[in-house]
Amino acid sequence: MTERITSASNPRVKRLTALGKKAKLRREEGVFIIEGERLYTDTPREYLKEIYMTEEFLGEKLGGAAPGSCTIVTTEIMRKISDTDTPQGVLCVAKMPSYTRKDLLGSADGRTPLLLLLENIQDPGNLGTMMRTAEAAGVTGVLMSRDTVDLFNPKTVRATMSAIFRMPFLYTDDLVGEIGRLREEDGIAVYAAHLRASKPYDETDCRKPCAFLIGNEGNGLSEEAANAASGRVHIPMQGSIESLNAAMAAGILLFEAARQRRKS
Amino acid sequence: MTERITSASNPRVKRLTALGKKAKLRREEGVFIIEGERLYTDTPREYLKEIYMTEEFLGEKLGGAAPGSCTIVTTEIMRKISDTDTPQGVLCVAKMPSYTRKDLLGSADGRTPLLLLLENIQDPGNLGTMMRTAEAAGVTGVLMSRDTVDLFNPKTVRATMSAIFRMPFLYTDDLVGEIGRLREEDGIAVYAAHLRASKPYDETDCRKPCAFLIGNEGNGLSEEAANAASGRVHIPMQGSIESLNAAMAAGILLFEAARQRRKS
Repeated sequence: MTERITSASNPRVKRLTALGKKAKLRREEGVFIIEGERLYTDTPREYLKEIYMTEEFLGEKLGGAAPGSCTIVTTEIMRKISDTDTPQGVLCVAKMPSYTRKDLLGSADGRTPLLLLLENIQDPGNLGTMMRTAEAAGVTGVLMSRDTVDLFNPKTVRATMSAIFRMPFLYTDDLVGEIGRLREEDGIAVYAAHLRASKPYDETDCRKPCAFLIGNEGNGLSEEAANAASGRVHIPMQGSIESLNAAMAAGILLFEAARQRRKS
Repeated sequence: MTERITSASNPRVKRLTALGKKAKLRREEGVFIIEGERLYTDTPREYLKEIYMTEEFLGEKLGGAAPGSCTIVTTEIMRKISDTDTPQGVLCVAKMPSYTRKDLLGSADGRTPLLLLLENIQDPGNLGTMMRTAEAAGVTGVLMSRDTVDLFNPKTVRATMSAIFRMPFLYTDDLVGEIGRLREEDGIAVYAAHLRASKPYDETDCRKPCAFLIGNEGNGLSEEAANAASGRVHIPMQGSIESLNAAMAAGILLFEAARQRRKS
């Protein structure tokens, strides 16, 4: 059924705008906003709860064939509910994927665990890029401290390139406790990325079950989290750069693990 | 000498705003804007041509000790000339560094050339991150096609973390010709990062003089540029991700080169 919203004062417009801005509302409803042609196309259909598009998008991109249930909005309304300066004409309310601790270990597929543990990452683009990169590197799951930026922030969602629907993830109130549990109960070696570590990352055996722990962009890892790890590794750097971007550091570590696993 | 600007209609305010926004004006004057405490501290003094700060910054961060020559501006003016939503209270006009082709090869220091070649990179953050990562990986120089985004865009400058003052770079009108010249005259192997390449990046010998060629975020490399390279390499990926972020791909390739060079 195709509905239409033509008035910007329609209460649904207000709700959609709020869903893009308020993490609390997203959590309460268990939904979030996805935006743009690419994400609309790549999102598994079972996650799509509401679809909004402009007449232009329907005509130009879908040849006028509206999906089963969708709402047509004016360009003005699309601009209002969109998080971007130049909306592409399609925006959806999607159901949040939900995972168990077991999913993060890749047990169901019999994969060797490779986890990414994040403490207090604050930049939405960094978090999204980490999800995208993690999927490409073969990460089995991403575990985040509760104070990490919201994964369902529209900027983060866009940067994941739809990995958000495929990469198992969990937030935890007790990252330090979880690090201990991963090591003791699951036999996973946890390596803390640390500027002052003596061991270069590529001298670590990543073929066995392991995890990389990455800290906040400005302050790095807390001492508690770094101390809870099995060991610390660093990425040797030249020049006068103090540190790498957090997503870049994660990518270099994870692709070293992928490289070692391909070789073995 | 410490001057003061208290009126937002002062013509210097207009000029500073324009320098932040207009690449053409920056090129004509050979200067650009740097902003924030970190960049102000890290910029070699000889590049600083004009320094603007708020009374608060001077008091809180410099203990009231103004540098040799600086201009005090109001918070309102700082907000106007700043590119960020929350200005840190210091902004400078800096001289553009300038390099020769020889600088890019690292000849002066007797280093083995490791170059990053960029075709039509459009995201300012990506370009800045690539400069920062390149310095850390030991890259000797960055060569960009003319249609690459302006390196002196304030967003790019911030993302470089001051690598912009240390990493030799050049723009070229003829990237394809330059690729040929690097191969033939300088004996540098040029590897094009390509999704449809058959050779994994880590099976390439990066210990000899080499360069990695990275294409546009959305469209990848042009056929002409990819064909001009010595060979193509790809980063093996898992999952359903179509490609990595361009800066991430560059970082993974460059740190593989750094890893191989450390081992040899």
